[in-house]
Amino acid sequence: MRVKNKGDNKLLFAVDMAGTLLFAVEGATAATAGNLDLLGVMVLAFATALAGGIIRDLLIGATPPASLRDWRYAAMAFTGGAIVFFLHHYVLGVPGPVLIVLDAAALALFAVAGTEKALDFDIHPFIAILLGGMTAVGGGTLRDILLARVPLVLRAEVYATAALAGSAVLIIGRKLRLSATQAALVGGTFCFLLRLVSVWQHWNLPKAVGN
Amino acid sequence: MRVKNKGDNKLLFAVDMAGTLLFAVEGATAATAGNLDLLGVMVLAFATALAGGIIRDLLIGATPPASLRDWRYAAMAFTGGAIVFFLHHYVLGVPGPVLIVLDAAALALFAVAGTEKALDFDIHPFIAILLGGMTAVGGGTLRDILLARVPLVLRAEVYATAALAGSAVLIIGRKLRLSATQAALVGGTFCFLLRLVSVWQHWNLPKAVGN
Amino acid sequence: MRVKNKGDNKLLFAVDMAGTLLFAVEGATAATAGNLDLLGVMVLAFATALAGGIIRDLLIGATPPASLRDWRYAAMAFTGGAIVFFLHHYVLGVPGPVLIVLDAAALALFAVAGTEKALDFDIHPFIAILLGGMTAVGGGTLRDILLARVPLVLRAEVYATAALAGSAVLIIGRKLRLSATQAALVGGTFCFLLRLVSVWQHWNLPKAVGN
Repeated sequence: MRVKNKGDNKLLFAVDMAGTLLFAVEGATAATAGNLDLLGVMVLAFATALAGGIIRDLLIGATPPASLRDWRYAAMAFTGGAIVFFLHHYVLGVPGPVLIVLDAAALALFAVAGTEKALDFDIHPFIAILLGGMTAVGGGTLRDILLARVPLVLRAEVYATAALAGSAVLIIGRKLRLSATQAALVGGTFCFLLRLVSVWQHWNLPKAVGN
Repeated sequence: MRVKNKGDNKLLFAVDMAGTLLFAVEGATAATAGNLDLLGVMVLAFATALAGGIIRDLLIGATPPASLRDWRYAAMAFTGGAIVFFLHHYVLGVPGPVLIVLDAAALALFAVAGTEKALDFDIHPFIAILLGGMTAVGGGTLRDILLARVPLVLRAEVYATAALAGSAVLIIGRKLRLSATQAALVGGTFCFLLRLVSVWQHWNLPKAVGN
Repeated sequence: MRVKNKGDNKLLFAVDMAGTLLFAVEGATAATAGNLDLLGVMVLAFATALAGGIIRDLLIGATPPASLRDWRYAAMAFTGGAIVFFLHHYVLGVPGPVLIVLDAAALALFAVAGTEKALDFDIHPFIAILLGGMTAVGGGTLRDILLARVPLVLRAEVYATAALAGSAVLIIGRKLRLSATQAALVGGTFCFLLRLVSVWQHWNLPKAVGN
């Protein structure tokens, strides 16, 4: 996920890097579970962390994608891969709830940033919601495609849905004349909380009747 | 599939929307058969209906893709997803032959429109045929990738082949100095009929000798 | 893989075409082993030979991709598909070591050309290494995705790693003020030899500890 150039301040960049690192760690963990080698771990760390933003940038015509323009995104993704590879034992030791909270935070961050960047490129708000959601879950989807399995986000839990809902709340906030910062905070918080509550309550989306 | 801006008349738009709806219904049906949830149904409806045109637009440099520039394409795709999700029983009740005829019509429409748009962007006619075929079957291919299975179009029946043949006929028609409209009609009709005859006669492409 | 327009001489083009043909033959061979029909063979020939370069061109903003701008790339890929399809028996008769040497040569060629094109588009050298590697193995990765299996490059042998190493050597050569041609030769040779030695010595990348 990438923030726009203007207003590209250090706090935002640090948060962005933290989200990239976390998603990279998650991708690398899936790679080691899938018995991939060091290269596979690095590729899945990169893809999981950055593919969502890269595809979004391709779709809105922002080439080269921001995460290929600044080498620090790739470096951070590979750092995440290396942490999992060399410190596998410690990563497995992180308590599940901590991972879920961090993941929900990264999900919210990517959804909000993706929506904002789409709006910056004059994309229709309705499409910007979709692109926000895709920024957040596109990396995980590509990870699952590379692992030759049906993407988790398509079949389980309130995950992509939380990202889309947070993006929608951001858009609604802007329509209600909140400032860009306020709308982003409200949307991100909504995504974050919706994700956590849905894990806690074991919420799932319905499946088609008769299936 | 998208028509060019100039000459973008209401009839063409309506036909385009109808094709989008039909492909979305087919994608959503595959999603429910694959036991995906509501989000998965919507994602597969969107991907099946619009991914072919989106990839074509990325390849010819027409960003943002037409189906992301006009929110009505996404809305129509989600409508198709919702129809399948909430009226699953009725959709299953549609007779097979009706679906095959409608699908052949949408295939022809997407192939022709994809070829024309590529030509509009000064793509070489030979490549325009490939892009026409990809517009028609790209969505179904992504649907199958997301369902973690070998794309149907790569192994069965005369489907992508019909799309490519229709695109080629369009190109030949233009070389023979037919008007753009005439060439499109001849190419689309050829694709439509070739698809229907091949289903009726159980035609399949050959496989490599010795396999 | 594509060479830049300036300096686009006949030798380079011929080498480029040879690499495209070889990768196409490999993709088509995988397609026949996967029991695909004629269309599937052609699609996999095309994807394996050209997808790496196409994705690289999309990422650096060079649209339409070079291999869609010049119809001879697609024609060469389909020629490779046709050779496998109609002369399947003869292709299977080519000794394994010959294929491995030819494949290593094509790998080196694509990696070097991909890195150079990225540098031409002012991509950061670190990212150019990644794009060089992706140009070399992107086609094979898409081939495996279309065959619904975990990409070979993610789990086996020193293959993508050789491509990345060759790209890195090219970059280092340029930093050491070698001419572009010298750097390309040194990088390509390094990739080629590393690949061959790793096959000969059965080198594999390590997997995460505890797996």
